[in-house]
Amino acid sequence: MSTKLWGGRFQEESASWVNDFGASINFDQLMADEDVEGSLAHVKMLGKTGILPDSDVQQIIVGLEGIQSDLHAGKIEFSTVNEDVHMNIESILTDRIGPVAGKIHTARSRNDQVATDFHLYLKNRLPKIIDEIGMVQSTLVKLAEENVETIMPGYTHLQHAQPISYGHYLMAYYQMLKRDKERFTFNEEHTDMLPLGAAALAGTTFPIDRQFVARELGFSKVYANSLDAVSDRDFALEFLSNASILMMHLSRFCEELSMWVSYEFNYIELSDAFTTGSSIMPQKKNPDMAELIRGKSGRVYGHLMGLLATMKSLPLAYNKDLQEDKEGTFDTIKTILPSLKVLNGMLKSLKVNKDKMHAAVENDFSNATELADYLATKGIPFREAHKIVGELVLKGIQNHQNLQDISLTDYKKINPKIDQQVYEVLKPTIAVERRHSEGGTGFDQVKKQIELAKVELNQ
Amino acid sequence: MSTKLWGGRFQEESASWVNDFGASINFDQLMADEDVEGSLAHVKMLGKTGILPDSDVQQIIVGLEGIQSDLHAGKIEFSTVNEDVHMNIESILTDRIGPVAGKIHTARSRNDQVATDFHLYLKNRLPKIIDEIGMVQSTLVKLAEENVETIMPGYTHLQHAQPISYGHYLMAYYQMLKRDKERFTFNEEHTDMLPLGAAALAGTTFPIDRQFVARELGFSKVYANSLDAVSDRDFALEFLSNASILMMHLSRFCEELSMWVSYEFNYIELSDAFTTGSSIMPQKKNPDMAELIRGKSGRVYGHLMGLLATMKSLPLAYNKDLQEDKEGTFDTIKTILPSLKVLNGMLKSLKVNKDKMHAAVENDFSNATELADYLATKGIPFREAHKIVGELVLKGIQNHQNLQDISLTDYKKINPKIDQQVYEVLKPTIAVERRHSEGGTGFDQVKKQIELAKVELNQ
Amino acid sequence: MSTKLWGGRFQEESASWVNDFGASINFDQLMADEDVEGSLAHVKMLGKTGILPDSDVQQIIVGLEGIQSDLHAGKIEFSTVNEDVHMNIESILTDRIGPVAGKIHTARSRNDQVATDFHLYLKNRLPKIIDEIGMVQSTLVKLAEENVETIMPGYTHLQHAQPISYGHYLMAYYQMLKRDKERFTFNEEHTDMLPLGAAALAGTTFPIDRQFVARELGFSKVYANSLDAVSDRDFALEFLSNASILMMHLSRFCEELSMWVSYEFNYIELSDAFTTGSSIMPQKKNPDMAELIRGKSGRVYGHLMGLLATMKSLPLAYNKDLQEDKEGTFDTIKTILPSLKVLNGMLKSLKVNKDKMHAAVENDFSNATELADYLATKGIPFREAHKIVGELVLKGIQNHQNLQDISLTDYKKINPKIDQQVYEVLKPTIAVERRHSEGGTGFDQVKKQIELAKVELNQ
Amino acid sequence: MSTKLWGGRFQEESASWVNDFGASINFDQLMADEDVEGSLAHVKMLGKTGILPDSDVQQIIVGLEGIQSDLHAGKIEFSTVNEDVHMNIESILTDRIGPVAGKIHTARSRNDQVATDFHLYLKNRLPKIIDEIGMVQSTLVKLAEENVETIMPGYTHLQHAQPISYGHYLMAYYQMLKRDKERFTFNEEHTDMLPLGAAALAGTTFPIDRQFVARELGFSKVYANSLDAVSDRDFALEFLSNASILMMHLSRFCEELSMWVSYEFNYIELSDAFTTGSSIMPQKKNPDMAELIRGKSGRVYGHLMGLLATMKSLPLAYNKDLQEDKEGTFDTIKTILPSLKVLNGMLKSLKVNKDKMHAAVENDFSNATELADYLATKGIPFREAHKIVGELVLKGIQNHQNLQDISLTDYKKINPKIDQQVYEVLKPTIAVERRHSEGGTGFDQVKKQIELAKVELNQ
Repeated sequence: MSTKLWGGRFQEESASWVNDFGASINFDQLMADEDVEGSLAHVKMLGKTGILPDSDVQQIIVGLEGIQSDLHAGKIEFSTVNEDVHMNIESILTDRIGPVAGKIHTARSRNDQVATDFHLYLKNRLPKIIDEIGMVQSTLVKLAEENVETIMPGYTHLQHAQPISYGHYLMAYYQMLKRDKERFTFNEEHTDMLPLGAAALAGTTFPIDRQFVARELGFSKVYANSLDAVSDRDFALEFLSNASILMMHLSRFCEELSMWVSYEFNYIELSDAFTTGSSIMPQKKNPDMAELIRGKSGRVYGHLMGLLATMKSLPLAYNKDLQEDKEGTFDTIKTILPSLKVLNGMLKSLKVNKDKMHAAVENDFSNATELADYLATKGIPFREAHKIVGELVLKGIQNHQNLQDISLTDYKKINPKIDQQVYEVLKPTIAVERRHSEGGTGFDQVKKQIELAKVELNQ
Repeated sequence: MSTKLWGGRFQEESASWVNDFGASINFDQLMADEDVEGSLAHVKMLGKTGILPDSDVQQIIVGLEGIQSDLHAGKIEFSTVNEDVHMNIESILTDRIGPVAGKIHTARSRNDQVATDFHLYLKNRLPKIIDEIGMVQSTLVKLAEENVETIMPGYTHLQHAQPISYGHYLMAYYQMLKRDKERFTFNEEHTDMLPLGAAALAGTTFPIDRQFVARELGFSKVYANSLDAVSDRDFALEFLSNASILMMHLSRFCEELSMWVSYEFNYIELSDAFTTGSSIMPQKKNPDMAELIRGKSGRVYGHLMGLLATMKSLPLAYNKDLQEDKEGTFDTIKTILPSLKVLNGMLKSLKVNKDKMHAAVENDFSNATELADYLATKGIPFREAHKIVGELVLKGIQNHQNLQDISLTDYKKINPKIDQQVYEVLKPTIAVERRHSEGGTGFDQVKKQIELAKVELNQ
Repeated sequence: MSTKLWGGRFQEESASWVNDFGASINFDQLMADEDVEGSLAHVKMLGKTGILPDSDVQQIIVGLEGIQSDLHAGKIEFSTVNEDVHMNIESILTDRIGPVAGKIHTARSRNDQVATDFHLYLKNRLPKIIDEIGMVQSTLVKLAEENVETIMPGYTHLQHAQPISYGHYLMAYYQMLKRDKERFTFNEEHTDMLPLGAAALAGTTFPIDRQFVARELGFSKVYANSLDAVSDRDFALEFLSNASILMMHLSRFCEELSMWVSYEFNYIELSDAFTTGSSIMPQKKNPDMAELIRGKSGRVYGHLMGLLATMKSLPLAYNKDLQEDKEGTFDTIKTILPSLKVLNGMLKSLKVNKDKMHAAVENDFSNATELADYLATKGIPFREAHKIVGELVLKGIQNHQNLQDISLTDYKKINPKIDQQVYEVLKPTIAVERRHSEGGTGFDQVKKQIELAKVELNQ
Repeated sequence: MSTKLWGGRFQEESASWVNDFGASINFDQLMADEDVEGSLAHVKMLGKTGILPDSDVQQIIVGLEGIQSDLHAGKIEFSTVNEDVHMNIESILTDRIGPVAGKIHTARSRNDQVATDFHLYLKNRLPKIIDEIGMVQSTLVKLAEENVETIMPGYTHLQHAQPISYGHYLMAYYQMLKRDKERFTFNEEHTDMLPLGAAALAGTTFPIDRQFVARELGFSKVYANSLDAVSDRDFALEFLSNASILMMHLSRFCEELSMWVSYEFNYIELSDAFTTGSSIMPQKKNPDMAELIRGKSGRVYGHLMGLLATMKSLPLAYNKDLQEDKEGTFDTIKTILPSLKVLNGMLKSLKVNKDKMHAAVENDFSNATELADYLATKGIPFREAHKIVGELVLKGIQNHQNLQDISLTDYKKINPKIDQQVYEVLKPTIAVERRHSEGGTGFDQVKKQIELAKVELNQ
């Protein structure tokens, strides 16, 4: 059992397939950089507090920095013999600088070490995610600005409801992404907490300086309780939850992209660069990327559910179950970053068929609310007006006649106060333009949203 | 079709079982109070802006206030004929004040109305949840204060790891709950946004004043985009996610409670008032309440997963699928509030078997780290010290001899520098006391945590 | 503690809010009928085996039968004082026939009793669910029969792919539902196992006859192991999983229904009886029922995930966590039965816009595969033919020219062997008709599917 | 666009990072063997039906067989340029045998090809999974046989309930695994269906012979409907659901293993080969493997939830979202196989501390039911007997006196009919032995279970 760092009380070796089952090096090697970074800060602290003599510290620092630059150069090889990234790095360090390497593990344990690596890993990536979201927001704002006066049907229940500005539609997603950013920013709060110094679970008798380590690693807080420090994965669950909500938003957008490029809608066109063809049907131009983003929402939901289930009922403090925290989190990062980037690319190269959009509200009944409101201004109670218009729509469908095609004579039969102005009110552009209420689709309101967004994005 | 408020264009009635399937009154009646509150604010705004004449407004206000007090008195009956809580209230209002009641729906739609009710409902309950968490925290702090020097085994992998303070253990849960409170507080941000004024999806042509309504209802922000306002359920997803993490924490605590009242552990005793017996086995005293809280974590996870799945791929803006947002949320509130209260009750009436806890670390090897650290101070490299102690433990298990039972003579064979002090180091209380590192289990550190917690709780 | 049946060793009462938290009577009263049924079988066995004297047995039977008929008449009132349905029924029985009622609990425990009730409950409902699925299948077959030759675009990636028969499309859902039925039928295997006789967990010293009870209750097997009997909930998980897959199928269908009634597709019309209007927009006719079914898939997924999470890591045998098994299962039954019924109603009253469907493939490029295949028969390698057609489509889109509009002269430039027959091949109906491959959309194949389905449904 | 097989109508290339996002070769290369196998069967059919000339067929077969043996030798390299495994294999084939390779795609599409590969992949692995479960069952039966008369506390609510046979306990898991096997066997039904021949979605005009292909590939059925064939993933969902239930069972077992190796229980010992130590605490012997299996239940649950969410609301037929079906399924196979193997290894090397188990029921109140039953046989109604014993237990706990330590004189005060035999009844071994009821823990019953199991396993 000489090969294991913990083998003293063990008499029997594990079979290699058992080791493989327990090993995490296949995935936690992604945190190798963070592991070295954490060790560097730890050993500097050990020197500063006099726990280790300066000569040892210097040797270890030189060794770790060598590993660090080899890591960046892709020259480090990992092995499942050494279970995890921590043991791998320590073993490489030992190969390079001899037994003094072992002193790096003074006053720490793998329990607080892995928690530190994992915190650092996410902490380093959250700003990138927030940035990518911001880039999609910028594209949305730009596209919205070009389409403030692009009229399209607004939908509820996937039925034409009322005409809206396409720019307004785009700004709805801007708002969702704004909340996503706020969530990931809040997520930073609980990620930005240093576990190191909790040791195995109870802290240590060595006179360590956790605040020093925190400063070295850029953490603004340290965990207040060592048991909590090694067993907390709230920050990862928050992340998976935030990512799930983000992907839900993207799934909605991509559902609409996919529908809107259909033969039937034909409201937008995606660039060839973001679509694919069929090996059999020569005419196909499939919105594969949009579908894939939509489909990947399930994957991220699954990772959230997986970690929640894994954490359920775990007694304190560290349990091996917690090793299951990383793959889902890593995969989620690997999923949402390109999803955002691909979406951004699709939006930047989007062609908007403004005529198609507009035509859709010229030949439908989405102006029915306008008529009901107009009748209400003529003194007909809204409920009565609603009923009258409902019946006109029913007749119109049967006779293939839109509301704007009904003669004034016929309108006057409904109520003599109806005059020529009714035809103005029924125009889709007018309907949109008049919705001046705060946050409404009126052009002025959409412009206001866009101006505010620009200010927000420059922050 | 005269019975439906929207029946103008319809020629055929739905069967009652179809109506039942679509009706939400069975559960959305829970928001009746919020619905009336929202209508009152809306109608006051309609008066203030001159959209409705004061006389209408006054009539409607009187009617709504009458319904409000009847609601509080439990005198309102709802009917599935009227689909949902909004139609029910409007219908009752019409019965009471006549057709003027219909004017209340001016410049709003059920889409923004239901979103407003739902926001209000959660907004009103989040502070209560945060309060209940705070009460559990207070109990934890009180119990921790009484148990700073209660020594028990600290566990990792459910194996004795190192002795810790029971007070320290309790403060770990304090920290988890602190993060839970922070999450629910953040949740308030996105709940505290007024959707009303978005109307069906596009805003309205009426000169409404959303800021006035927001002030009336205690909202500090209004939704910036009307499409987003009626289709956003982020606040509910955040809530379900926060509740899932909270329940995960409670499931961990309750798992430990359930284990610790077992015959084998016997560390604590639950009050009769929080346990139940068996109809067959007269000796049983089951920690039912702890198990139920643990089990209910699954229920809350399910609600989170359910709403995430429901929201996936929904096109903008409102779709009937969104009606599925409420039952899971309501049930989650109904689950976490009593879970917290029951947990608090269990903790308040908990009996701690301090002797049992202490005995568990007097007769085990949880002081092995102490010995290894002690050897390290005698100049033996830690890895070597670890190995020596590991082998002593192995022999000790075979010979039923603890580390403190090894003679000084035998210790000196390992290293002659070992002296009488080793027996001091091996005492569990000393092991705990010496862990002075920040956030460690040392008594001074636990006291510090408690003092800080008291300050936090008074905020 | 006199009120509790298990109060002997208890000195303190629970507060009523604690009892409420632990009580299950609010939902397990749904199994009251099964509880009485189970007790009747149990007491008959106690008589038959001589464990109880006939006189006691007769008294109890009369009492239970009285409760049974009062239950059916809706005359039984339950109370949370008595925790659960078992205690409620026993308490009512005691009120009616005196202390002899207590003897009914001989040789059983609530652990095996609740498991038995739950098995019976699901066992009684699975055939109903299978029936409802069959009814939807029948409607699909009928509708398919009427639409064998109704031509519509077949979609992949929501893009027109190749023309298909609408009847063929409908039969795809027939096949999904067929698998659903098979799953629920398999589910019966593990539901049809009697737990009663396992007592608390270990069986009993009484000379019970479990086979007799099984026969009385219509179970074909008894659990082979008493620990397994009281802690197994596989049958419920299977059910929730099957229901999730079923709802996934329905969500796909309802997604398409919702899309196909849109202004843009307009392929079908739903009856007024299965749609609703808007309180604001008079023209709206929303496919609410389809959306609600789609949305409810999330709810059922959530119940599955909830129970899986609750069951995770539970030690044997019964734990109170298991009380969480029922609400999700009951709600799922209550969800899928009307979902199927409503879907059936929608299908029965569906209006198919055959002209719209057909028109969609007359003016698109869904015949591109036909052309490529045709070129291949003229000796052009398929990959080359695919490329040629792809380029024709690209040019066609730019020039608003479909493949059938290209002149023979132009075709001959591509390959002189192309002749007049190409125009035949490009006709959508021909394209559908020619797909004779087994399971393909060719009319003969669709008819074959329908004939086989009829045979299957009569079984 | 010459590089893409579908590039005819495309004018713009995708960026490589976009291709990477869409590519599946990183994971679907696991199905390379199945892809070649499927192509071999397909091309043989194309020859047999005369769709391709024999010379082409022979060339392709030789090419594919070459690829097959290079695959087995690990000599094939895949590239993301070619998107997926199908394109990779076809591209390699083209490199080797020239343009004739393209003819392999006659009368099929990637849609039915990938579905076929995926079916084959799972179909090939289900028997292996069923086998592994059977091996764990065999170990359980062997261990049970050695422990029929090993007495231990039976638990409900993790409280000592009644003494049971450890062999009985083990056989409870045998039963769970039996149902798991039945579920995976049922899963084979819907996996054993051939999609090939569905082509893109509608079947093909070529005179293919799907039954021939089915026979070649060992499928006993072909999909009856081509749309269903390319869009069905029920078989994968069934698999993930079955795997989730299996992992739930394993999580329960591993929870108990982890608890039972604790200092407090100490009922069993795991071999060194299936435990690990701590880098800091020399005494630690952690049941890491058991914890990891328990933790991995969450992972599998997550994959189930992920695919259910992904499939929700997908319109027919193939959508790119479906590409998300494979990674979770592959990972689940990769998770459950070693979980079963590791569990089996742990069980085979388990040391049972029979004395500890027995001691636990010699010094507790788990014989209370025996006393109550005994009193009942003396004519005291069970409810009264239950109460008497409850009170004796309460007093016993206070006085540290077990039921077997109460003097006959004191017993006679309760009821004079109590005689010396009561002490016999109170012995744990007698309590177990007497539970002769079918499926109970009585030794005869446990032996019966074991005998039946042996018969079942030999099948």
